[in-house]
Amino acid sequence: MSALIALLTDFGNRDSYVGVMKGVIARIAPGVQVIDLLHEVRPQSVSHAAYALYMAVPYFPTGTIFCCVVDPGVGSERLAVAAEIGEWTFILPDNGIVTRVLDHWPAHRAVSLSNPTYQLPHPSFTFHGRDIFAPAAAHLTMGVPLEALGEAIAVEALQRLDLPTTYTEENHVSGSVMHVDHFGNLITTISQAHLGQQRDWQIHLAGMEMVLSEISTTFADVPPGQPVAYIGSDGFLELAIRNSSAAALWGCNVGTEVWAERKEGD
Amino acid sequence: MSALIALLTDFGNRDSYVGVMKGVIARIAPGVQVIDLLHEVRPQSVSHAAYALYMAVPYFPTGTIFCCVVDPGVGSERLAVAAEIGEWTFILPDNGIVTRVLDHWPAHRAVSLSNPTYQLPHPSFTFHGRDIFAPAAAHLTMGVPLEALGEAIAVEALQRLDLPTTYTEENHVSGSVMHVDHFGNLITTISQAHLGQQRDWQIHLAGMEMVLSEISTTFADVPPGQPVAYIGSDGFLELAIRNSSAAALWGCNVGTEVWAERKEGD
Amino acid sequence: MSALIALLTDFGNRDSYVGVMKGVIARIAPGVQVIDLLHEVRPQSVSHAAYALYMAVPYFPTGTIFCCVVDPGVGSERLAVAAEIGEWTFILPDNGIVTRVLDHWPAHRAVSLSNPTYQLPHPSFTFHGRDIFAPAAAHLTMGVPLEALGEAIAVEALQRLDLPTTYTEENHVSGSVMHVDHFGNLITTISQAHLGQQRDWQIHLAGMEMVLSEISTTFADVPPGQPVAYIGSDGFLELAIRNSSAAALWGCNVGTEVWAERKEGD
Repeated sequence: MSALIALLTDFGNRDSYVGVMKGVIARIAPGVQVIDLLHEVRPQSVSHAAYALYMAVPYFPTGTIFCCVVDPGVGSERLAVAAEIGEWTFILPDNGIVTRVLDHWPAHRAVSLSNPTYQLPHPSFTFHGRDIFAPAAAHLTMGVPLEALGEAIAVEALQRLDLPTTYTEENHVSGSVMHVDHFGNLITTISQAHLGQQRDWQIHLAGMEMVLSEISTTFADVPPGQPVAYIGSDGFLELAIRNSSAAALWGCNVGTEVWAERKEGD
Repeated sequence: MSALIALLTDFGNRDSYVGVMKGVIARIAPGVQVIDLLHEVRPQSVSHAAYALYMAVPYFPTGTIFCCVVDPGVGSERLAVAAEIGEWTFILPDNGIVTRVLDHWPAHRAVSLSNPTYQLPHPSFTFHGRDIFAPAAAHLTMGVPLEALGEAIAVEALQRLDLPTTYTEENHVSGSVMHVDHFGNLITTISQAHLGQQRDWQIHLAGMEMVLSEISTTFADVPPGQPVAYIGSDGFLELAIRNSSAAALWGCNVGTEVWAERKEGD
Repeated sequence: MSALIALLTDFGNRDSYVGVMKGVIARIAPGVQVIDLLHEVRPQSVSHAAYALYMAVPYFPTGTIFCCVVDPGVGSERLAVAAEIGEWTFILPDNGIVTRVLDHWPAHRAVSLSNPTYQLPHPSFTFHGRDIFAPAAAHLTMGVPLEALGEAIAVEALQRLDLPTTYTEENHVSGSVMHVDHFGNLITTISQAHLGQQRDWQIHLAGMEMVLSEISTTFADVPPGQPVAYIGSDGFLELAIRNSSAAALWGCNVGTEVWAERKEGD
């Protein structure tokens, strides 16, 4: 099995932070493959990171090492950890980024990244991505065992986020916009599981008159410029305007309330 | 020959769509090299994708697999195809992205990506990049033959765009701005071939008084802050302001009319 | 030792310029590893490139080839060069990008990239990244010796920038904002060496009432939303607002004056 590191950060692309992490990895593990999963997590948004990570992991090879640096508490008492969950290993600050992954796959074991042997010398107080997380990921690909990175911690002790709640009643599901993508499509917290297989729901968006009277299969079910609700490629209810930006035209953002009501008469 | 996949999409960088495609490729074809050609195609602009792809292909190795996902018709009846054109293979929705490539290199054969064996199980209706295009590209690098991906289609049947027209008369060439680059330089539809080797043309830009009285060789032919017209690195007429942004200062965009007139007395 | 090329440009991500350079590299040196160090250098800002390069090089493997294209003088008389400095090789326009690297590591030898054998045929006048710099880097990884790329030049003749000055008196250090990062943190020209080990400095920012009365160790030393001054991960004084954007809230930018005064009574 060829080793693979996937990077998830909120570092954006206007600085060399990500490039430097890759330099550190290349020094420790020459030639190892690194994939950029996402670097545009909303700055310091652990909940965005948790969503993006959970959506991505099933598509990556068994054994992938996810090195995730969204770290508003860098320099505080929060732990830096490595955890084996499902078929993958996660290297990250212990702040809840793995919340959604933990909800869906079993956690096997975890350690604190406390062994200075596998950190850069004299780690900084503000850039643990370079000094602690990237080195840990690189050393793992070189065969260093997880337990060498630091002392064991209980997987039950890993921090979890309070995720945005989705309320469900028999004929009513209420949630919110969880993510706005590059196209301006709105990904909501309401999932296929909340709605079941029936498609006869009315979808409402807070602060707007708009009601979508059914759930479509794909964009192409409506003409260009028309609103559409559908179950997205990750299993969540999405709202969009075909070939346009729903977020821009409707003025929506993360957190906007969304609810679904089963249509009368059904 | 080492296998190489180049990705061209309009997915931008604020979502994990591209990262997930790379995860899919790594699962099917561990260690295969993937190059990001461009992910900032203007959203759903097939004509931008067609231009960017055509400019890039001659610089890539023989055998490169270009996986292109600019797909306003995802979920509709449009075909997903693989086509061998020139020295390369193209995996993409059949919507005209290869128009300019087809104009310059011979098409050898094409298939529809209809064989579910080489798709992810239960492909979504909205993310064929992940479920159909990336798997097809990855399987090709592992030695799956093109014809196994689906039934043959006639290369003559591949969709083509109506490209922006460039009109030429003996002393007059009229076209438009085809692309605005990161520096604010304007790349036009007027090519070296339209103008010939002579450099005594006056260049006009719609809605402006500005006339550039000759075609220069490079930026450095004019002082900083001065406008300049030159044949760009891809063979097209470009308009720029040295060390500044022509698009911002002149308020131009894709589609702005540009014309060239042979100077009087020549 | 596996060959590694790191790319530093101001090409951004809305064009395929970087992708095309990678295609050129892959043609010449199939399978060679390429790392994106940074592509969002401020357009044509050689001083930004000089800062980003200097910060990054110590974290990269011995032998890394840095291919740097921030090139406001492309097409002019400026030289294209390759230089061995410290443990690395640098391929770039001779415009001062290596100024800070030269200040900290010894230069061994340099050549002009004048040998057309190692350029693309018929190089353009506006895209030397594709036609001259990327090919030179790729040929080096294939074993072409530095001296084959062109005639030797004296390392003392390499161009240097006038960097932003930092003035120091016994109880006063004055400098400016050198970079604003993705989080809106302000990286200044004032370094740890200017301030010494004592932390009892008052930090002032031009055009503001704000005075920070001490230098902290990290963000977490202050509550969220509070301003903080600290020595950043690269050894420079940085000013930030914890979990927010100092640049946005304070209206600062590159060049804003910053000064430090030793606190009275110490």
